[in-house]
Amino acid sequence: MNKLQETLKNIAPIDKNIAELAQQKLDSAAKPQGSLGVLEDCAKKYVTARNFLDAEIAKPTILTFAGDHGVAEEGVSAFPQEVTPQMVANFAKGGAAINVLTKHAGADLKVINIGVASECNSPGVIQKNIALGTMNFTKGPAMTIKQVEEALTVGIEEAENAINAGSTLLGTGDMGIANTTPSAALYSAFTGIKPENIVGRGTGITDSAIQRKISVVEKGLEVNKDSLNSPIETLAALGGLEIAGICGAILGAVANKTPIVIDGFISGAAAITAYNINENVLDYCFFSHLSAEAGHINIMENLGVCPILDLNLRLGEGTGAALAFNIIEAGVKIMNEMASFSDAGVSESNK
Amino acid sequence: MNKLQETLKNIAPIDKNIAELAQQKLDSAAKPQGSLGVLEDCAKKYVTARNFLDAEIAKPTILTFAGDHGVAEEGVSAFPQEVTPQMVANFAKGGAAINVLTKHAGADLKVINIGVASECNSPGVIQKNIALGTMNFTKGPAMTIKQVEEALTVGIEEAENAINAGSTLLGTGDMGIANTTPSAALYSAFTGIKPENIVGRGTGITDSAIQRKISVVEKGLEVNKDSLNSPIETLAALGGLEIAGICGAILGAVANKTPIVIDGFISGAAAITAYNINENVLDYCFFSHLSAEAGHINIMENLGVCPILDLNLRLGEGTGAALAFNIIEAGVKIMNEMASFSDAGVSESNK
Repeated sequence: MNKLQETLKNIAPIDKNIAELAQQKLDSAAKPQGSLGVLEDCAKKYVTARNFLDAEIAKPTILTFAGDHGVAEEGVSAFPQEVTPQMVANFAKGGAAINVLTKHAGADLKVINIGVASECNSPGVIQKNIALGTMNFTKGPAMTIKQVEEALTVGIEEAENAINAGSTLLGTGDMGIANTTPSAALYSAFTGIKPENIVGRGTGITDSAIQRKISVVEKGLEVNKDSLNSPIETLAALGGLEIAGICGAILGAVANKTPIVIDGFISGAAAITAYNINENVLDYCFFSHLSAEAGHINIMENLGVCPILDLNLRLGEGTGAALAFNIIEAGVKIMNEMASFSDAGVSESNK
Repeated sequence: MNKLQETLKNIAPIDKNIAELAQQKLDSAAKPQGSLGVLEDCAKKYVTARNFLDAEIAKPTILTFAGDHGVAEEGVSAFPQEVTPQMVANFAKGGAAINVLTKHAGADLKVINIGVASECNSPGVIQKNIALGTMNFTKGPAMTIKQVEEALTVGIEEAENAINAGSTLLGTGDMGIANTTPSAALYSAFTGIKPENIVGRGTGITDSAIQRKISVVEKGLEVNKDSLNSPIETLAALGGLEIAGICGAILGAVANKTPIVIDGFISGAAAITAYNINENVLDYCFFSHLSAEAGHINIMENLGVCPILDLNLRLGEGTGAALAFNIIEAGVKIMNEMASFSDAGVSESNK
């Protein structure tokens, strides 16, 4: 059995008893029941995913995967493809938003070159390049099944490396010019929502470019319609190497009962793929924020999930996930550190 | 000129040139323009309020004011009044949510007894008790003008103490059984929104208790209708000592160009009072979160402000403000620490 098969086999449902015990613990704390809202939800979800009522958070880590996209040649992005390696170099030097926000969060950042199209060898970048970008999905599948399986395995391994280094909470991130286009295609394939209700402005394209981008996604779905017979086939046809890497990281985290925080629009496409591979995945995923990318809200509603933050972000890199770490940690600390009504000598409600 | 008059005289409009320079600085950072949404808004607002483009955040501090309410005798709360001093004692021992969250935020917490109705002398609590609770506002004004001016002055002094100790970002918090009732009355008086569209469940009252609470607010507005001729008179008639303390802290912060983070429903009532005293106040206030208390959204819309977080919180104490510190700090760091397009060697948009 290879790493991917083994990982999929290890994904298990959560134990709902832990969630019930967590609720009791939260309700014993000296505050009106439920008055800490999403903090309580986060705490309950975290300890349930960890399968341990008194679980704490250690070494939160963002895994940011970088890859390029053949479909960039269709003019779907406001930025040229050379920006992918330039931004990876910026990550390596510490000057990007994700550097600032992981440092602010007290989190580690791992940057993985899984499919950048040109030289991308800055010190500190983890080199796992599977191909120099994907193929243009308007002309056939973006990747081979073998490439996708390799990318999923890289993601699993990077998640496990972080877990073995002591991380109990992971987060996802992406860098890849044009990658809102394959993400929109994956969303449409998995949910049946029309591309026009998913495609957005990405890094800031014009109205006419949006129409072209919708057509590109529609063409990708049409050209590949016979190659969408399983989640992994769909990921190969329409996805990207960094999206597959993120999907692998999610599967690897879930198989190891390690909650993982999904960044925004791109990471969400990886998450919906992972969910289609195994529906237990969602019980281990936090959705960090509602992206400003137009279609994200439709996808979140389709999945029945409620993102933690709504900050009008549309950058990717893992920035939303890094910000959500703070809220999840706050929730877990609330559960572990507050005094109970009896310990604090506080009278309970009249009800 | 007394402290209150002097403070009001020192409140000045922001300098919009700083906001423009801040936008330019944010736009030079290597990311699509505006892609960090609310983080960018926070950074711009913070440095503009500080009146210094390169301002950083030091020693964020929550000021939590505690007071009791005569109107509690109308049965408007799910908890007995004795909980106010019990919770202050819990703050002093470090076991409450606000302790956990200020510690998590790396922030200081100051707890001020400004009007608790019974003994409340735990070590570490700042003793500034003006009265043993307010009067029942269904029978006349809750406070005298003199009491309100004293409470405003206490708030100003506590803000200035924190600022003199090095804080460049303050946050507000409250403790006071029944205090959603005076807050709802103040909101209604200042906005004209009917009590039925503002009054909520507070710490968790039943449907029938909500109807009674609406009637109590209506009665308070009716009984005091001739005592609402100025913001300070309105605050005296319908407010509370901790609400006046928070209002003073806001005025004191603003007069010292120190941004202040408004917690939820109760602190918002203090903020709307401060805004009615001087409309420049809003340019210095961050609204930390949209409270789960039903009417809060109507008030935020009326003020034309958009809270940073929406986490279904309804606890008070300053918990929402403490959580929002992290986001505001993230924004300020984004502005101060990111590499520019040119420094990072990243190509700009094709547009």
